[in-house]
Amino acid sequence: MTEEALVIFTPSGKRGRFPLGTPVLTAARQLGVDLDSVCGGRGICSKCQITPGYGEFPKHGVTVAPDALSDWNAVEDRYKRIRGLIDGRRLGCQAKVMGDVVIDVPPESQVHKQVIRKSAADRHIEMDPATRSYYVEVEEPDMHEPTGDLERLARALKAQWNIDGIDADLSILRRLQPVLRKGEWKATVVLNRGNHDSRHRLLDIFPGFHEGALYGLAVDLGSTTIAAHLCDLADGKVLASSGLMNPQIRFGEDLMSRVSYAMMNKGGDVEMTKAVREAINTLAVSVAKEAGVEPSAIYEMAIVFNPVMHHLFLGVDPVELGQAPFALTTSSSLSLDARDLDLTDLNRNARVYVLPCIAGHVGADAAAVALSEEPNKSKDMVLIVDVGTNAEILLGNETRVLACSSPTGPAFEGAQISSGQRAAPGAIERVEIDPVTKEPRFRVIGVDLWSDDPGFEAAVAGTGVTGICGSGIIEAVAEMRMAGLVDQGGLIGSPDQTGTWRCEPHGRTYSYVMHDASAAGGPKIMVTQGDIRAIQLAKSALYAGARLLMDTMGVDKVDRVTLAGAFGAHISPRHAMVLGMIPDVPLDHVRSAGNAAGTGARIALLNRAARDQIESVVHHIHKVETAIEPRFQEHFVNASAIPNAVEPFPELAKVVTLPDVSFNTGGSGGGGEGGRRRRRG
Amino acid sequence: MTEEALVIFTPSGKRGRFPLGTPVLTAARQLGVDLDSVCGGRGICSKCQITPGYGEFPKHGVTVAPDALSDWNAVEDRYKRIRGLIDGRRLGCQAKVMGDVVIDVPPESQVHKQVIRKSAADRHIEMDPATRSYYVEVEEPDMHEPTGDLERLARALKAQWNIDGIDADLSILRRLQPVLRKGEWKATVVLNRGNHDSRHRLLDIFPGFHEGALYGLAVDLGSTTIAAHLCDLADGKVLASSGLMNPQIRFGEDLMSRVSYAMMNKGGDVEMTKAVREAINTLAVSVAKEAGVEPSAIYEMAIVFNPVMHHLFLGVDPVELGQAPFALTTSSSLSLDARDLDLTDLNRNARVYVLPCIAGHVGADAAAVALSEEPNKSKDMVLIVDVGTNAEILLGNETRVLACSSPTGPAFEGAQISSGQRAAPGAIERVEIDPVTKEPRFRVIGVDLWSDDPGFEAAVAGTGVTGICGSGIIEAVAEMRMAGLVDQGGLIGSPDQTGTWRCEPHGRTYSYVMHDASAAGGPKIMVTQGDIRAIQLAKSALYAGARLLMDTMGVDKVDRVTLAGAFGAHISPRHAMVLGMIPDVPLDHVRSAGNAAGTGARIALLNRAARDQIESVVHHIHKVETAIEPRFQEHFVNASAIPNAVEPFPELAKVVTLPDVSFNTGGSGGGGEGGRRRRRG
Repeated sequence: MTEEALVIFTPSGKRGRFPLGTPVLTAARQLGVDLDSVCGGRGICSKCQITPGYGEFPKHGVTVAPDALSDWNAVEDRYKRIRGLIDGRRLGCQAKVMGDVVIDVPPESQVHKQVIRKSAADRHIEMDPATRSYYVEVEEPDMHEPTGDLERLARALKAQWNIDGIDADLSILRRLQPVLRKGEWKATVVLNRGNHDSRHRLLDIFPGFHEGALYGLAVDLGSTTIAAHLCDLADGKVLASSGLMNPQIRFGEDLMSRVSYAMMNKGGDVEMTKAVREAINTLAVSVAKEAGVEPSAIYEMAIVFNPVMHHLFLGVDPVELGQAPFALTTSSSLSLDARDLDLTDLNRNARVYVLPCIAGHVGADAAAVALSEEPNKSKDMVLIVDVGTNAEILLGNETRVLACSSPTGPAFEGAQISSGQRAAPGAIERVEIDPVTKEPRFRVIGVDLWSDDPGFEAAVAGTGVTGICGSGIIEAVAEMRMAGLVDQGGLIGSPDQTGTWRCEPHGRTYSYVMHDASAAGGPKIMVTQGDIRAIQLAKSALYAGARLLMDTMGVDKVDRVTLAGAFGAHISPRHAMVLGMIPDVPLDHVRSAGNAAGTGARIALLNRAARDQIESVVHHIHKVETAIEPRFQEHFVNASAIPNAVEPFPELAKVVTLPDVSFNTGGSGGGGEGGRRRRRG
Repeated sequence: MTEEALVIFTPSGKRGRFPLGTPVLTAARQLGVDLDSVCGGRGICSKCQITPGYGEFPKHGVTVAPDALSDWNAVEDRYKRIRGLIDGRRLGCQAKVMGDVVIDVPPESQVHKQVIRKSAADRHIEMDPATRSYYVEVEEPDMHEPTGDLERLARALKAQWNIDGIDADLSILRRLQPVLRKGEWKATVVLNRGNHDSRHRLLDIFPGFHEGALYGLAVDLGSTTIAAHLCDLADGKVLASSGLMNPQIRFGEDLMSRVSYAMMNKGGDVEMTKAVREAINTLAVSVAKEAGVEPSAIYEMAIVFNPVMHHLFLGVDPVELGQAPFALTTSSSLSLDARDLDLTDLNRNARVYVLPCIAGHVGADAAAVALSEEPNKSKDMVLIVDVGTNAEILLGNETRVLACSSPTGPAFEGAQISSGQRAAPGAIERVEIDPVTKEPRFRVIGVDLWSDDPGFEAAVAGTGVTGICGSGIIEAVAEMRMAGLVDQGGLIGSPDQTGTWRCEPHGRTYSYVMHDASAAGGPKIMVTQGDIRAIQLAKSALYAGARLLMDTMGVDKVDRVTLAGAFGAHISPRHAMVLGMIPDVPLDHVRSAGNAAGTGARIALLNRAARDQIESVVHHIHKVETAIEPRFQEHFVNASAIPNAVEPFPELAKVVTLPDVSFNTGGSGGGGEGGRRRRRG
């Protein structure tokens, strides 16, 4: 008998057993894992780089031994020597499976590299950056006027710009004298003003007048994706936006898995900190390259994240966030040196502004949403949901604002969905199903045509139709419900019950075939019963969070709903309401705010006063803890049906008709399954 | 009606009436009496010890009954049993006022206690350290009170110690949560308060009550020697002092050689920076070891130096200091992180306070001398000379203070002297020469006997007589002059001219044999003609600097002279005046201030207010530049004779007689040689 080992790939979650000695690239191909290779496994192209994970993976139920992969070999050695290879990386075509292993496929090794649609919302931000440059003319030194060059520079800044007090780092002191002399006592200085003190930090100095712009980075560090916007600090323009998968996914897909990883593996938090800092550094370099600027011209960064990401980014063990009372190390905003955070590709003296957190489960991302959406200034009762792997939910008006966090899981981001994928070219993002014929039409990212438009086949020839992204799966499930393919309990009907061959048997349940290219060697894209269950769980968690806030606020309806989050801009309000993701409101009272957390980070990056503002606002947002609230469980159980069987949706009824069907034949359960408490994440 | 009693504190004389039952510590705080407490009155730290007085106090108009304080209690009993308590002492937080009472606060219980120095220049330093520890009890986190641990710690510090605003480094944030939990929400924090802002930095945190003391290092970084004093930051006591040669000597003995080295060798400044930082690190470890404390308990350092050392320590190329107008990179004081200066053996978060410089050639060492000697508070016209490789000279009174720096070279430190060595056991430090027999007697460092005392040979058997240190060579040359062995021009006479075999031929000149152990394989210690020339150059530079300041001030005599410097304490005023090192004043108006620069560093280390003070004082000291002042050259040329041939020394004439001898036979020149301009250094 040939011995076999379990191989689990992240971020896809795909897994399978393979004979010992199977190259990782081969295993990836057999499982349909998106791992690039140009040379076909000959060890030439190095496109198939992977990162094995070692240690305990409680989420995956495996322990990876240090010898889970074959030894580092001569091909890899030569490659690393000549071309360089990030520490910890292996070549997938060379490394062979020798035991159970968890393999992460980094974004660069994926063919379908992500185009994260965390596009910066078009929004007017008043410019008041903490970092800006000033041109000054400095008095020459004089034997009879024996102050230092720094003091004469400070005096010039006071006289010419009314700036009081500057502090210089040793690296600047070192360069000060030659630069002033080279510029013949004219210089351009880059100053950063902190929020707690009136003094300015001298971040950089150039001889004479320096034409170069200063750049800032607004970062939204999510559990699953990291988005960064490169902004010109002078005019606030977004010059480039980019995203990366959070490399911590290999340590656990949801937050609590990562906290567990840190608890079970000594130094696990340090590994995760290193991984995420490296990713942010990489992302900074990549957006700078995209915009054609030097990363060293990035002088400031504003960053938002949930509390677990906050701790891991700062290098603080997140263990306390895994248990009541979920105490944060610090909830205040922080101003730090980028180099202390190992962000070495930014300017050497770059500063990092960390937005304040609201509470143990309601992070700086929620604070950023509050900064961007300003529920505290609303006369209406507004509900804001920021959908990600964890949903941040805010409810309130100018009188009072409540916030909570709800563990929706990564389904809304296309993860843990059978044909799910991240938002990238080839992914289905819009879906319509004809209620009569039950035939689907869809659109994929990167192509403007619908699938039944002439020319669609030619338009997708490059990428093919590769999977369904987060917004696509929401539309698919909602359309299936509206077309009578799915009943109120979330069950997919049989071909007989639905009258379409597309509902084909799949074990003891049925799957809806959206697109089948298997005859041509392509994928067969389906929505399975499991997918519907995952979406039901996610939307129940979201809905239950919103209801819990409404209960706490003492209201049974809201005036407005704002959808935000990584893909918030792409969720169709109508479909979200059909699914029961959000409470019933008139459809025209639902709007998309795009990536509100990212926008909040951008506001904080570009406007100093906004930093003061958010620091005061967070103290007035009352946090509601879902983890210990029995009513959250109750709402969660009640919310699993599509639409919710308990809560009527009169507003929705005005715009859609939901067929009254029931496919429950005593087999797999309906809504009740949604009542199982999911792990937070 | 609550009964009250009168409480009178001594030595402050503060008094007030308090309800019976008020703890003495509470009464002290309400009256603003300086009574220490680290634990905030919890009976843990025992810093609040007081001595009640009983009986009649006619001066205060009270009679204190035996039961004026509450009974000795269990906390005090336990403390006395375990840790010891002087009889008659009580703990101020435990003893309660039960009747009129007189309470003495002993010096050890005062926060602003004064450090008594035992040296000749007795001086009190009031304690007001920037770094101290506080014991706090922090609220536990609560699901409904979602602030971070840092914010609750800050709140506790505000409530219990009235401290506003703390900032924590990432290394502290990382440790905060486990430490607070380990100490069960009781902790001791080490806080440092900067001078420019009111916020405190959290340098360290310990679970529960931390007994360990905090230490500070006062460093005087000279061109030739580095001296460090390890102080207890609570009481100011110097626990260990140590010195090292400045390893930069290998790059050049005087300052200008080092500046040249940096100019001629790419990266030369970096090498010198590395060398001196390593030496200071080594010195810190060595004084800590001597005192038996961990170097990581050193939380703060105050450092003084001349401008070239200042730049090289900070890692700034000193090239500008080598050419007019001698511009400093920065003249202000600096507060830096020790780790940014590679002082990695101190506490990881240790702070470094760099005293301000006065001007391009008048450094933080001169500022420290001003802080220690306070010429700006003197009614008399006082001349302060801090003798090192460069002499820092201050002249002034409460109206005006002038300063300059004079390039004496290292001769006064025993360098560039044929038998010279630094002040260490075995070095000749005191010399007398019999004017009749021309025989010398001397004392060496580490031995109390004179060389002609019985038992001297046995006493020096360990080290031997190894050389002559800086103060020794000054005495030797002056004694040779007084004994008629050296003429007014500085020339050593022949055996025939002097009548002693000790003046033996040495090339075309003569040397005086002080000690000859060559028969036994030991050294032959001599004063050569070259040594005399080196001392003449050094003393001329020193004298010329003093005269230049007097000219600028418009005075032709001074009221007092203070000798300072690494060996200032050891220079005999009489010999200094015979040599013509200092202007003529009555001998009893000359005093030694010891290492005034080091004392200034120590004051700045121990007293925050002194930092503000020196920063304002340096702006009122007027610098006179010797390098470009023709009168300096003139004074320098005229000052080379011994004693100065031009300036009469009437005060000196009252105490010594100088033989009228002249050995000039037309060979090597006399005073004229001193007129050659020496390189600054």
